[in-house]
Amino acid sequence: MTDDVRTVEWAGDGLRLLDQTVLPGRVEHVVVRDVEALVDAIRRLVVRGAPALGVAGAFGVAVAMLQAEREGWDAAARDAAIARVREARPTAVNLAAGVDRAVPLVPKGVDAVVAEAQAVLDEDVRNNRAIGAFGADWITARAPDRPLRILTHCNAGALATAGWGTALGVVRELHDRGRVEKVYADETRPLLQGSRLTAWELVRAGITCLVQADGAAPSTILRGLVDVAVIGADRIAANGDTANKIGSVGVALACAAAGVPFVVAAPWSTVDLSLASGDGIPIEERDPGEVLAWNGVRTAPDAAGAFNPAFDVTPARLVSALVTETGVLEVADGETPGRAART
Amino acid sequence: MTDDVRTVEWAGDGLRLLDQTVLPGRVEHVVVRDVEALVDAIRRLVVRGAPALGVAGAFGVAVAMLQAEREGWDAAARDAAIARVREARPTAVNLAAGVDRAVPLVPKGVDAVVAEAQAVLDEDVRNNRAIGAFGADWITARAPDRPLRILTHCNAGALATAGWGTALGVVRELHDRGRVEKVYADETRPLLQGSRLTAWELVRAGITCLVQADGAAPSTILRGLVDVAVIGADRIAANGDTANKIGSVGVALACAAAGVPFVVAAPWSTVDLSLASGDGIPIEERDPGEVLAWNGVRTAPDAAGAFNPAFDVTPARLVSALVTETGVLEVADGETPGRAART
Repeated sequence: MTDDVRTVEWAGDGLRLLDQTVLPGRVEHVVVRDVEALVDAIRRLVVRGAPALGVAGAFGVAVAMLQAEREGWDAAARDAAIARVREARPTAVNLAAGVDRAVPLVPKGVDAVVAEAQAVLDEDVRNNRAIGAFGADWITARAPDRPLRILTHCNAGALATAGWGTALGVVRELHDRGRVEKVYADETRPLLQGSRLTAWELVRAGITCLVQADGAAPSTILRGLVDVAVIGADRIAANGDTANKIGSVGVALACAAAGVPFVVAAPWSTVDLSLASGDGIPIEERDPGEVLAWNGVRTAPDAAGAFNPAFDVTPARLVSALVTETGVLEVADGETPGRAART
Repeated sequence: MTDDVRTVEWAGDGLRLLDQTVLPGRVEHVVVRDVEALVDAIRRLVVRGAPALGVAGAFGVAVAMLQAEREGWDAAARDAAIARVREARPTAVNLAAGVDRAVPLVPKGVDAVVAEAQAVLDEDVRNNRAIGAFGADWITARAPDRPLRILTHCNAGALATAGWGTALGVVRELHDRGRVEKVYADETRPLLQGSRLTAWELVRAGITCLVQADGAAPSTILRGLVDVAVIGADRIAANGDTANKIGSVGVALACAAAGVPFVVAAPWSTVDLSLASGDGIPIEERDPGEVLAWNGVRTAPDAAGAFNPAFDVTPARLVSALVTETGVLEVADGETPGRAART
């Protein structure tokens, strides 16, 4: 068992976060005790990944309550601070959902809010275990009977969740069953979550990992080097359109062209039934400097601008399977989340 | 006229190269006077781009002859040195073709070889002007009647040629006709030829340039933000399968899905009629360190490996148009280079 990563946990008087901006070079934690620091940590991707953001959002309500007590805020100021946490990043629906789960407990006090946030965390780990098992079952029923060559994009691992991971939960489960040959990890520019975080998790788990440039993914798939692609999700519309890290839809297009299954692994909380399709998913655009510079050193010419959307939307027709803790939906074949929710 | 870049030129006793590894931060030239230095410059991408490699290969024969004279080599040693230049990189057919054009002149002496290499260079610039005009004509006949939003990948500009450029030659021609709104330049990991070189050329030419992560290209296209994609090529098989910088086929897949024209711009010398399809094109794999580290600083964990193919192959069915100095072939509609060569 290699899943000893603690991405998010309550530290008694604040939220303890594994600082994902300095991995894999350094393994450092920060304890966040006020809303400004939490919003900053979310925006800078100290904590990231849709499920982990859900947990951080729930605990964030407790952070705001403690700060309100300490600094003598009234309820309106406290609620405004909670709203700032809720809106710190726009694309992952889980952040707002995590906040919304904890808010009804506010009248009962901080301990009740912390207990609810802890329940969100515990459920996330349980959900990830279920996602891993459902996903591994679905894949092994369809894949060649040998260790598999898997491609993933960005990081949907223990670091993106409260533990175990969604897409990497499926990979870990397949590994436990002796069914992983290697994982191609797209490096995931501009912030290299694949090269820094996914590779770090896989290496720790004893899984062979080959990092590749994001542009390499389509040809690796088309050349027949990949048996299945598995990614996470930040928001999934009722029709199955899936927002995930920028670059995901290129993987999906190549999988469709090559006849390789494209699997989305995410907790049901990532589904946003209020949106009929992906057209309604807000796409965060981040600082152009993330693309134009590297460790503070400008790489592009000064007069160049950048376009830096953090997410893209994969159309439902390209999603072979959506794996949640409730089972598998074959979205491209019409098993949409909206239909599943109605039945 | 902004095309004052001199990528490759003869310096009387050696080959003067604009060092593309230090752009855009520094504009520096190196003069190469022996074969080891030339092979190293080609491998390190001091000089790069299929047409520029053709010119460098032709002049490289003269470099080998002068070194042979200086160091008292016999003909066999000289020819072995010429062969090393010819094989310095495997994918672009132009490098070998450039060497092969100059070699028959060797018995006539260095001046004759230099004159032939200069002819290769002059033809390249003329060809690029023709490519630019044919490409701009084809695009404007099909595109909306307004300044266009163009996407390009890697660098197929003046820096990849003896001047003006192939894909960027088309863009420059469109710009001269007042038909460019902006260019999305994929940064082109791992060596950032898009961010460093294409952006540098476009900014110098007064063309609005937005650099984006390679993973962003498919969604930028699918979101309707791109009117046409134009790229270069390193080798084109008889059936129209096109090898170009890793990441190109992802652009092509997205263009096909979105109904956006995918245009390949390259001199006819890039066509290799000896290959029936792209399956026969050798794909260079480069040092994993290009992906795993940045400026010598490791970004991935130590135990991670990398997969670093430098090129991919776009199937002919995805190539809307192949623009050469002889005109336009609508490859996806069956106008293949092999068929054109027979008629």
